[in-house]
Amino acid sequence: MANPATPSFANALNRYRALVDQGLKELDWSTAQPAGLYAPMDYFMGLGGKRLRPALCLMACEMAGGEAESALPQALALEVFHNFTLLHDDVMDESPLRRGQPTVHLRYGLNAAILSGDALLIEAYRLMVQAKPELMPDLVKEFNRVALQVCQGQQMDMDFQNREEVSLSEYREMIGLKTAVLLGSSLKIGAMMGGASATDAQAMFRVGYLTGLAFQVQDDWLDVYGDPKRFGKQIAGDIKACKHNFLRVTAMQEATHEQMKHLISTFARLRTYLDQEKDEGDVQALEAQRQEWVDDTTGCYNEIGLKQKVQQYKAGLIQDARYALSRTGLNDAPLASDLMDYAEYLANRLE
Amino acid sequence: MANPATPSFANALNRYRALVDQGLKELDWSTAQPAGLYAPMDYFMGLGGKRLRPALCLMACEMAGGEAESALPQALALEVFHNFTLLHDDVMDESPLRRGQPTVHLRYGLNAAILSGDALLIEAYRLMVQAKPELMPDLVKEFNRVALQVCQGQQMDMDFQNREEVSLSEYREMIGLKTAVLLGSSLKIGAMMGGASATDAQAMFRVGYLTGLAFQVQDDWLDVYGDPKRFGKQIAGDIKACKHNFLRVTAMQEATHEQMKHLISTFARLRTYLDQEKDEGDVQALEAQRQEWVDDTTGCYNEIGLKQKVQQYKAGLIQDARYALSRTGLNDAPLASDLMDYAEYLANRLE
Repeated sequence: MANPATPSFANALNRYRALVDQGLKELDWSTAQPAGLYAPMDYFMGLGGKRLRPALCLMACEMAGGEAESALPQALALEVFHNFTLLHDDVMDESPLRRGQPTVHLRYGLNAAILSGDALLIEAYRLMVQAKPELMPDLVKEFNRVALQVCQGQQMDMDFQNREEVSLSEYREMIGLKTAVLLGSSLKIGAMMGGASATDAQAMFRVGYLTGLAFQVQDDWLDVYGDPKRFGKQIAGDIKACKHNFLRVTAMQEATHEQMKHLISTFARLRTYLDQEKDEGDVQALEAQRQEWVDDTTGCYNEIGLKQKVQQYKAGLIQDARYALSRTGLNDAPLASDLMDYAEYLANRLE
Repeated sequence: MANPATPSFANALNRYRALVDQGLKELDWSTAQPAGLYAPMDYFMGLGGKRLRPALCLMACEMAGGEAESALPQALALEVFHNFTLLHDDVMDESPLRRGQPTVHLRYGLNAAILSGDALLIEAYRLMVQAKPELMPDLVKEFNRVALQVCQGQQMDMDFQNREEVSLSEYREMIGLKTAVLLGSSLKIGAMMGGASATDAQAMFRVGYLTGLAFQVQDDWLDVYGDPKRFGKQIAGDIKACKHNFLRVTAMQEATHEQMKHLISTFARLRTYLDQEKDEGDVQALEAQRQEWVDDTTGCYNEIGLKQKVQQYKAGLIQDARYALSRTGLNDAPLASDLMDYAEYLANRLE
């Protein structure tokens, strides 16, 4: 008997997860030579993760009437590509940890991080084109477009860090490129592999794209409203790092004149704190001062009603995704409601 | 009237060069957004270079009976890919200059160098697949293989820097992967685009591969026997950097027991010099000492007769390339002798 606490999509996800884990194992980079190239690839892929993109790909393939196995190379390509972006992003962001473990550049050095990342990108292409020749042109074209867009999104994200203000539409464009297009393509490519029409495949892109936006917006929402024990990150990390995230750009759009002035001056103070040299003696006092600015900012967010406003924004995105799906021929597939439940779950996840 | 001092292949190269320059111009990255991503790509591609790989590609296409224009996207892909490898290699080698200009990581920063390099690799794939659908599977398969091999070669090269000794066959494998396979593929892909049979295309790979080995061997030969004014690099740079290059691995293979002991101890001293902290006061004396070790090493090379031995080795490679070409159906093409003259020129160039 099915456990009523287990949503139906979890059963599908478990099936996909097993396929993907087996597929990744068969790539077998643990003993490939030269080890200096392959060991970091093996290490990084082995750090785990939700395997969200391959799951979306396999689900879309089944929705379109294909066998999940037939889209496995593409599902793996999407996961390998995603890990390529994470590996190089970790270098660019100087991140010490990934999924609680040392990042590749800290464990193996900068050169290994660059070169192993490059090889992951090439491997992603190799996997992506393991398909019938007649599908290959569309697959490569789709993958090229998305891969370049993800680079553009990463560049925009880095550019934003030096900006005083970022508008909501600019921010949405950036997360669209950096995060959402890859989720869109995961569904689109899966649908293509399952034999969907071009129109249905494109509609599936839109479903994934909107879900991807909601997924990232929720990530930003959790920065302030998440439970640090469940979310696994420190609370208000984005505020402390002066990151223009979805909460901030929405707050700036919704704020009264007074609130806006307040948000701007607090942001400037936090940035000064970041840039300033800190004497050991002062650290405690400075830290207390910073916490006040952080509390000021979240207080302002609460006043504006961001907690609810952002929830509504996400609900709108998921509603649009649902509508996009309803316009396709895949809407009656048994898995269609699983997909939307999964999208809803991703948009509201607390961890 | 043709200038007798101008080899016939130079006329072909000039035609290809004009096509490639125009094609690169049309990529138009100078104004693409975000500029933080595209400006470094535009800068690096604009530093110039011999455009050797696209020239080989276009020549092979014409030899196979195609129009050079029809292989232009692939020729550009090969050049863009080559520049991707140079851009990331410059970071890994901490090189300050490329073609006499600041490298991307020095001019735009590490993050730009990583991300712009990634985007060049993706652009290379985008260009490579601009072909008739029926050619695409073979093109992508070939390009994937070569791209991964170049990464393997770069890793082997970095691994060698920490090794006491490297055998001739190991060194040949490394330069085969890092340099020669891409020259091989340039001819193979050009031949494929021109309509060559699979057998002829594979033979063209071999022609390019052997030429690529000779090309790299000549690079190593010029390190000691080149004219610094023409070659544009300091003499004995590889010896000073304790690099296992072709001269060194050949010397170690050809040396008498006494010579070998001498080469090993001098190499160890040079390495100690590299690793040692240098007081300003000592620099001049240390430098004079180092020059003695360098002179010792080149003296030993001369005793062994490397200057001639390496010339013979290259001549053997070019002879093998000539034989490989003679076994194809492309040998009677008007450009076949131009190709071999060009290969000969590359293997003996003095700059």
